[in-house]
Amino acid sequence: MDKFLALVSSLSAVFALIFAAFTAKKIIKFPEGTEKMKKIAASIRSGANAYLKRQYKIVVIFFAVIFVVLGVMAFLGLLTPYVPFAFITGGFFSALSGFIGMKIATLANSRTANACINGLNKGLRVAFSAGSVMGFTVVGLGLLDISIWFILLKFVFKLSEVEITSAMITFGMGASSMALFARVGGGIFTKAADVGADLVGKVEAGIPEDDPRNPAVIADNVGDNVGDVAGMGADLYESYVGSVISSCALGVAALKNINAMALPILIAAVGIICSVFGTFLVKTKEGATQKQLLGSLSRGTNFSAILIAVLSLPLVYYVLGVSNWKIYFAILSGLVSGVLIGQATEYFTSESYKPTRNLAATSETGTATIIIGGLSVGMLSTLIPVVIIAVCVLVAYFVSGGAQSASMGLYGISLAAVGMLSTLGITLATDAYGPVADNAGGIAEMAGLDKSVRERTDALDSLGNTTAATGKGFAIGSAALTALALMASYIEKINSIEGGAAKISNLGINNPTVLVGLFVGACLPFVFSALTMNSVGRAAQSVVKEVRRQFKEITGLMDGKAEADYASCVDLCTKSSLKEMVLPTIIAVVVPVVVGLALGPAGVVGMLAGATISGFLMAVFMSNSGGAWDNAKKYIESGVHGGKGSSCHKSAVVGDTVGDPFKDTSGPAINILIKLLSMVSIVFAALIVKASIF
Amino acid sequence: MDKFLALVSSLSAVFALIFAAFTAKKIIKFPEGTEKMKKIAASIRSGANAYLKRQYKIVVIFFAVIFVVLGVMAFLGLLTPYVPFAFITGGFFSALSGFIGMKIATLANSRTANACINGLNKGLRVAFSAGSVMGFTVVGLGLLDISIWFILLKFVFKLSEVEITSAMITFGMGASSMALFARVGGGIFTKAADVGADLVGKVEAGIPEDDPRNPAVIADNVGDNVGDVAGMGADLYESYVGSVISSCALGVAALKNINAMALPILIAAVGIICSVFGTFLVKTKEGATQKQLLGSLSRGTNFSAILIAVLSLPLVYYVLGVSNWKIYFAILSGLVSGVLIGQATEYFTSESYKPTRNLAATSETGTATIIIGGLSVGMLSTLIPVVIIAVCVLVAYFVSGGAQSASMGLYGISLAAVGMLSTLGITLATDAYGPVADNAGGIAEMAGLDKSVRERTDALDSLGNTTAATGKGFAIGSAALTALALMASYIEKINSIEGGAAKISNLGINNPTVLVGLFVGACLPFVFSALTMNSVGRAAQSVVKEVRRQFKEITGLMDGKAEADYASCVDLCTKSSLKEMVLPTIIAVVVPVVVGLALGPAGVVGMLAGATISGFLMAVFMSNSGGAWDNAKKYIESGVHGGKGSSCHKSAVVGDTVGDPFKDTSGPAINILIKLLSMVSIVFAALIVKASIF
Repeated sequence: MDKFLALVSSLSAVFALIFAAFTAKKIIKFPEGTEKMKKIAASIRSGANAYLKRQYKIVVIFFAVIFVVLGVMAFLGLLTPYVPFAFITGGFFSALSGFIGMKIATLANSRTANACINGLNKGLRVAFSAGSVMGFTVVGLGLLDISIWFILLKFVFKLSEVEITSAMITFGMGASSMALFARVGGGIFTKAADVGADLVGKVEAGIPEDDPRNPAVIADNVGDNVGDVAGMGADLYESYVGSVISSCALGVAALKNINAMALPILIAAVGIICSVFGTFLVKTKEGATQKQLLGSLSRGTNFSAILIAVLSLPLVYYVLGVSNWKIYFAILSGLVSGVLIGQATEYFTSESYKPTRNLAATSETGTATIIIGGLSVGMLSTLIPVVIIAVCVLVAYFVSGGAQSASMGLYGISLAAVGMLSTLGITLATDAYGPVADNAGGIAEMAGLDKSVRERTDALDSLGNTTAATGKGFAIGSAALTALALMASYIEKINSIEGGAAKISNLGINNPTVLVGLFVGACLPFVFSALTMNSVGRAAQSVVKEVRRQFKEITGLMDGKAEADYASCVDLCTKSSLKEMVLPTIIAVVVPVVVGLALGPAGVVGMLAGATISGFLMAVFMSNSGGAWDNAKKYIESGVHGGKGSSCHKSAVVGDTVGDPFKDTSGPAINILIKLLSMVSIVFAALIVKASIF
Repeated sequence: MDKFLALVSSLSAVFALIFAAFTAKKIIKFPEGTEKMKKIAASIRSGANAYLKRQYKIVVIFFAVIFVVLGVMAFLGLLTPYVPFAFITGGFFSALSGFIGMKIATLANSRTANACINGLNKGLRVAFSAGSVMGFTVVGLGLLDISIWFILLKFVFKLSEVEITSAMITFGMGASSMALFARVGGGIFTKAADVGADLVGKVEAGIPEDDPRNPAVIADNVGDNVGDVAGMGADLYESYVGSVISSCALGVAALKNINAMALPILIAAVGIICSVFGTFLVKTKEGATQKQLLGSLSRGTNFSAILIAVLSLPLVYYVLGVSNWKIYFAILSGLVSGVLIGQATEYFTSESYKPTRNLAATSETGTATIIIGGLSVGMLSTLIPVVIIAVCVLVAYFVSGGAQSASMGLYGISLAAVGMLSTLGITLATDAYGPVADNAGGIAEMAGLDKSVRERTDALDSLGNTTAATGKGFAIGSAALTALALMASYIEKINSIEGGAAKISNLGINNPTVLVGLFVGACLPFVFSALTMNSVGRAAQSVVKEVRRQFKEITGLMDGKAEADYASCVDLCTKSSLKEMVLPTIIAVVVPVVVGLALGPAGVVGMLAGATISGFLMAVFMSNSGGAWDNAKKYIESGVHGGKGSSCHKSAVVGDTVGDPFKDTSGPAINILIKLLSMVSIVFAALIVKASIF
């Protein structure tokens, strides 16, 4: 099995990467459009590149410091010697996923706009292809990282399965840290630019969105790329790798053979191939309605999901044998839960359904009522995802034989996470396509293309909002399951350390260290959200001031006679977001160590559970409130409640602005936070066992 | 000890009630003021009475249904036969606490306004006396209920201590249900009237607050009484009784003697006497500054707290003996934590400190930024209370010998809750005094009294906002500790039931039923907040429409030539709030039973822990966001950022309106929710053990 596994996993990884490269080549062949479009695209591209370059400079310092810390710990025997290097590779591949995704997105935006001149389907194909490059880069690099380390540890260092998985489970910390930097930094950038541009441009100066006279307009477009593309790529790379390796570790702990480790990797490999097939189904006819467009995307994802569901059954049977075939239902429950959470998200945030329509109606009585309404939509929307995750956890645990052996049950939960993420190649493609379409719309507007082009990009963009919302539900669901699997891996890890079992023997919820850990952990997503929202606020205020300054000082700007200084806004966003991203990341890395030292391993488990649960709720709440406000505004813009420019619309714009950091900064960052906490805890497990008070 | 205990506790209860009656008499002797004042006060009083009468009609139906359910359960041997009757008495005394508090508040409002004609100190004395009546009624009735049942069960039915406490722990459900009705119904009433009055009166018609031309102005004042007074009285009655009886039950479980049961009751008794002494210190000199006013209130509460801290040491030593005297520090840690949480709340919500001042500054960039800012202040403010509660739990657990015996540790946690609530007599007085002062201001305005009077009532009212904020922090902290104690009592209860121990043996956080319970429980405060906020929204919209209608249809209203139809607004608020209060209460009663049947006792423990933790965070978050917005608005009104009427002020008003249901409806209701969930779980424990799946 070991050689077969190495072969299949590395081949699928390479297959995904080749498919991504091939798709990227296809995109680049499309024409970029007029000179003006080229120029705008180049500004966006250079802004995004400049941002990433400076981000990486800061990240490198962080990684160097942690590398040294891990090196010292390895030297002291608190870690295996591979960990510091694995930490670096995880971070590197995560960053690379984001970088490649962003690179292709910034190449595809003007091409999408240009393709829209020739029709909706052409535009969809270009934008969706760009999303696919991102999706398959993420899964390809993820599986590649896992394969390389597996081959190294198995065939070069000749470790046993237990040693391999025990080492690999510590590898995720690099990816998670990088992801948090990317998500928080990018999230602050994109929303500071967006809020800043809207507040002065739309509200004060009364010029339309994406108007070239707005000095923050390029920064806004850069933000889409560094936040929604690069940030999301790093984020999902981390989820993907985390779910697979924690499942490997739990499998080996439960079944003590390599087959248990092989299963999640093989599911991931099969998932890649099914996802590639799915992408070929995404196309639409000219003049397609919103519903048909969404249908064409759903066709691709649904086909992939069904294919994986069908193929997983023989796979499980083949790998684990007849005695454990029921574990298949754990995988299936993850897959189904992902789809259901996506649909629940759509119900609460799409303007086609009651919640968002009712929310739009609350604008009739003013701004306060639409804010209250949006907050309650988000809070209420937590119920269904919680029930879905609850049922998924119970099903996954018990079909896997959790009643007889707890470790089998936990393995089942981890496989549910892998099942949910198995379609990542294509679901991420549908998700990452959104910002490309959004950028294309911006370019069409700024380059003064025909109105019909903007209409087409708007159709694509609006669809992107729906897929982004479902994608977010999906990211949150998989993060929760992965975090639970990582928590279980942490317990395994502590048990495997000398003296650890005694410290973790009482995980009872009535044990005060566990209870206090729960409180502290549950508090973290609140604090984290507060910090990131404040960061957006501060950064946005600096943008507001700069835009106001330019409007005042650059004569002829409002008449279109002088050009705005776009670069200064980009620079400002870059500076503030990079400054603001450091504290949250440091908190996420330091807190598990401090809690561990103070409360011991049992307290850490409490903290991880608390953070996962409250993080899940907060992420759903914030994402869905944000999504509902955004679409309530769009719904009003479609002409109801007085339409654009009415007092209802103004109230809805305030709601949307509040929702921006909710859904695009704080919400998504929480997903990474809860996994990074687990990863850090796992890496520092040996230290905590040795040095903790309890 | 048993007779001594019965004597001391019933005597203190009677002492508190006599002090309350004596104070009430003193208040009634004050003159009510001019005819106009009398008329306004009478309208408020009759509106409040009418509301309560109709509320009780609905509550009676609910109680009758549950009484029958409990009766059937008792008949089937799933409950002791006392429970249905105790359920009724708990509900009755809780309702009575609220009723008396409200009665005296509606008698004191015009008298406070009238006393303010003669000076600030006179006004303070009347308003504070009204608060004292409420405070001592609550603690007196609470201890009376406990004493009566203790005497009955001990001397009439001759039960053992274990049987007594095991029966009494089920008694809280009546008080909790009544409290939830009162808090939710009253909370919706007060905020619907407030928001409705503000939205049309202040924002649309541009008339000042409490202007007699506003048809919702009486409803607004009625709301203060039925929400902030009657609701709070029922709420804290329930906390008080819940903390004492759960501590009795845990004490008997840990030490198996009557002394362990006596301790919490005796602390409560001592607390009453110390609180009475404290009230005599509350007075101020004429022309006192805000700080001096606050100082005079703090003098009273601090003196009481220190006195209790000093007297508890010999008390513990006397009751529990030398071997357990360290439990004193558990009580002390609760007392200190209550004070610290209050101070943390003040820091985050008072305009004297940075968070609220910075929040006011965010209004410079518009409504969206002050909303984002307020949400993040609230979220960030969860950190310190969590740390305080965490330290308190650990200290209380370990000083009580939790390391050797878990049940001693849990007893310690419950004593921390009793310690925190021991000063309730006076802290509730400082808290309940606020709405009286608020009403007095309204009456002064409506009756057209001299400006200096309104200035004095404003000074009292503004102080009331600070004490209300600290009171809320205190209510939340004690609710969390009480809920934890009740959770421990629930575990004891299940263990005492045949077949229960096996079902609850694995409380490990990695047990999937516990984990799923945590998820479901943590979700409840989110759903609950959403429901109550929506209720406020709906009720407020109906008020808005009615006020708009009156402005349009009653000719001469705006010129002061015709009178508004106040009664119709009161009636509207009454109807909608009563309609809206039913669903949340039913959810709170039904969910624990459903979760119990589906997930078993271990799942219920998970649910209770999840609800307590997320409820604590949500309550702190929502209360403090609301408080910060409220005071940011007041700070701007003091003249900064453009002062009253500026665009900053308008943004701040929106923030304040959003904060209204946050801090006065959803936040406080969560406190009761988390305790009611435990109470219901305890009552249905035997059923769940028999019938649950897991």
